[in-house]
Amino acid sequence: MEYRLGIDIGGTNTAWGVVDASGQIVLRGSVPTTAYGGESVDDYITRLCGNILAAADEAGLTGRILSAGVGAPCVNSTTGCIEAATNLPWPSPIALADLLGKALGIPVKAANDANAAAAGEHLYGAARGVDNFLMITLGTGVGGAAFVDGHLLNGRSGFATELGHIAVPEGEGRVCACGRKDCLQCYCSASGVVDTAIQKMEKFWAHTALSDVPREEITCKTIGTLATEKDDFLCRQVWKQTGEVLGRALAGYAAFTDPEKIILFGGVTNVGDLLLQATIEAFNEHALHLYAGKVKIEFSQLPQADAAILGASAL
Amino acid sequence: MEYRLGIDIGGTNTAWGVVDASGQIVLRGSVPTTAYGGESVDDYITRLCGNILAAADEAGLTGRILSAGVGAPCVNSTTGCIEAATNLPWPSPIALADLLGKALGIPVKAANDANAAAAGEHLYGAARGVDNFLMITLGTGVGGAAFVDGHLLNGRSGFATELGHIAVPEGEGRVCACGRKDCLQCYCSASGVVDTAIQKMEKFWAHTALSDVPREEITCKTIGTLATEKDDFLCRQVWKQTGEVLGRALAGYAAFTDPEKIILFGGVTNVGDLLLQATIEAFNEHALHLYAGKVKIEFSQLPQADAAILGASAL
Repeated sequence: MEYRLGIDIGGTNTAWGVVDASGQIVLRGSVPTTAYGGESVDDYITRLCGNILAAADEAGLTGRILSAGVGAPCVNSTTGCIEAATNLPWPSPIALADLLGKALGIPVKAANDANAAAAGEHLYGAARGVDNFLMITLGTGVGGAAFVDGHLLNGRSGFATELGHIAVPEGEGRVCACGRKDCLQCYCSASGVVDTAIQKMEKFWAHTALSDVPREEITCKTIGTLATEKDDFLCRQVWKQTGEVLGRALAGYAAFTDPEKIILFGGVTNVGDLLLQATIEAFNEHALHLYAGKVKIEFSQLPQADAAILGASAL
Repeated sequence: MEYRLGIDIGGTNTAWGVVDASGQIVLRGSVPTTAYGGESVDDYITRLCGNILAAADEAGLTGRILSAGVGAPCVNSTTGCIEAATNLPWPSPIALADLLGKALGIPVKAANDANAAAAGEHLYGAARGVDNFLMITLGTGVGGAAFVDGHLLNGRSGFATELGHIAVPEGEGRVCACGRKDCLQCYCSASGVVDTAIQKMEKFWAHTALSDVPREEITCKTIGTLATEKDDFLCRQVWKQTGEVLGRALAGYAAFTDPEKIILFGGVTNVGDLLLQATIEAFNEHALHLYAGKVKIEFSQLPQADAAILGASAL
């Protein structure tokens, strides 16, 4: 049997897995991304690849891993370089695909995390056999990827589908981490959800169990738990509004690529149906007749912990 | 030498041309689209193709036209059918590519007008050799097309890039012909420009030569002429605002496909630099740093009268 390697580089941890043809992770491991202060990127690559090669050797997989994919923030999919990643300690650009390819002795393809997630979904998940779909990742940030006519969109510099940084209709002036106003990310990232909750608390003075949580400890997860388990009115409204903003934004995105499916992925989706139903309703209300009622909006089918590795391996 | 045929079906007139490899139209003609009340679509196809074949025969081109393309409103690029065209007299769907292919005896490809224009621009115009570009058509309606990684986006049902029907950020609630609110088309089509002018007249009572024009005779063309030839303040403001709305919308579209160029086409662009400069400024102000200053926004290089024929022939 032949295997592929998937590597997911996060700001804190780098996880990797060896994946078989059926999408099972048969071997896995992880190393800290920035464990040792002052370590160069070359040292990090040596340490990471040493860990992988030793484990593969021990498992009898040496020579049977044919290729690797790596997902990381701010990767230019065309060059395989990390450009301007704010949460990694090394100076950009980092020739990620080249460095890993040399250290591992196999072809390596690099892509940004959202593109990797979409590749995984296409090969193993909710988008198997689907040539036209959008992937939206809702986490610390909001990312996007698009398969159109069977191709993953890359664009001139590999920076297509930065869908988290498109201004939403009827924005209220929130400032994004990118410095611009009213990006989708301001409303549908984990911190966007918290902002919406705090805004509602200040505006409506509705009774909410959130009042018992110190302001700086309010998280997207808390708001989700209170909404689903405690039926907290204000928290439910937060998710309703998040879905409305997301659904209307997706209605615009659908007019761009005419997708069959839109797949939502990431920590913010853990709240489940409350978000999904509000998103679907808003989408169908705001989408052009060509798309309304015709696009399936659903959550990723990949286990969240493994999706990044599976996605990277699918590149 | 080998030739291609381009056919442009409009609500009033159908124009066609035989195009050589260098993009010259060597033979052309036209027939009324709906000349004879009650004529069936089959009769229309017979009449159109009779006109083309007779002219080609007379010019000694019989057998040398290898393929044809046809641009029309509301064409599903995947099936080659016209679906739900509101300005044609026949019931939809119309199997346009099939009907024309049988009557002409050559392969025929059909696409909506904006996609055809983009294909023409890619083969003969401002986008020669450009693999990543957006095309925006600004006329009676607003349409769009996108080449990404060298592919023209089609989507699930051939209805990708309906860019005129994406809601703009900071819309003011204008109702679109599609029934939805704040589509780009409400602001940047010919009638959108007129709406902006009338709104400014009602709101500001500024002195403008437009006041001397009966309300129902105010056209996009008049507003352009007064702005460029008479330096009319209010009319210049109309174009500035049109460019601002367009530029900010394009900043969002750029985040979708990471284009090298955005090409503007259609009657609304006749006003020239006044619109172009305002659009470029707004784009660079609102685009994410990955795209700001890096995308060339320019007008089509194809002669407007021939672009539809050249575009269709390029399909």
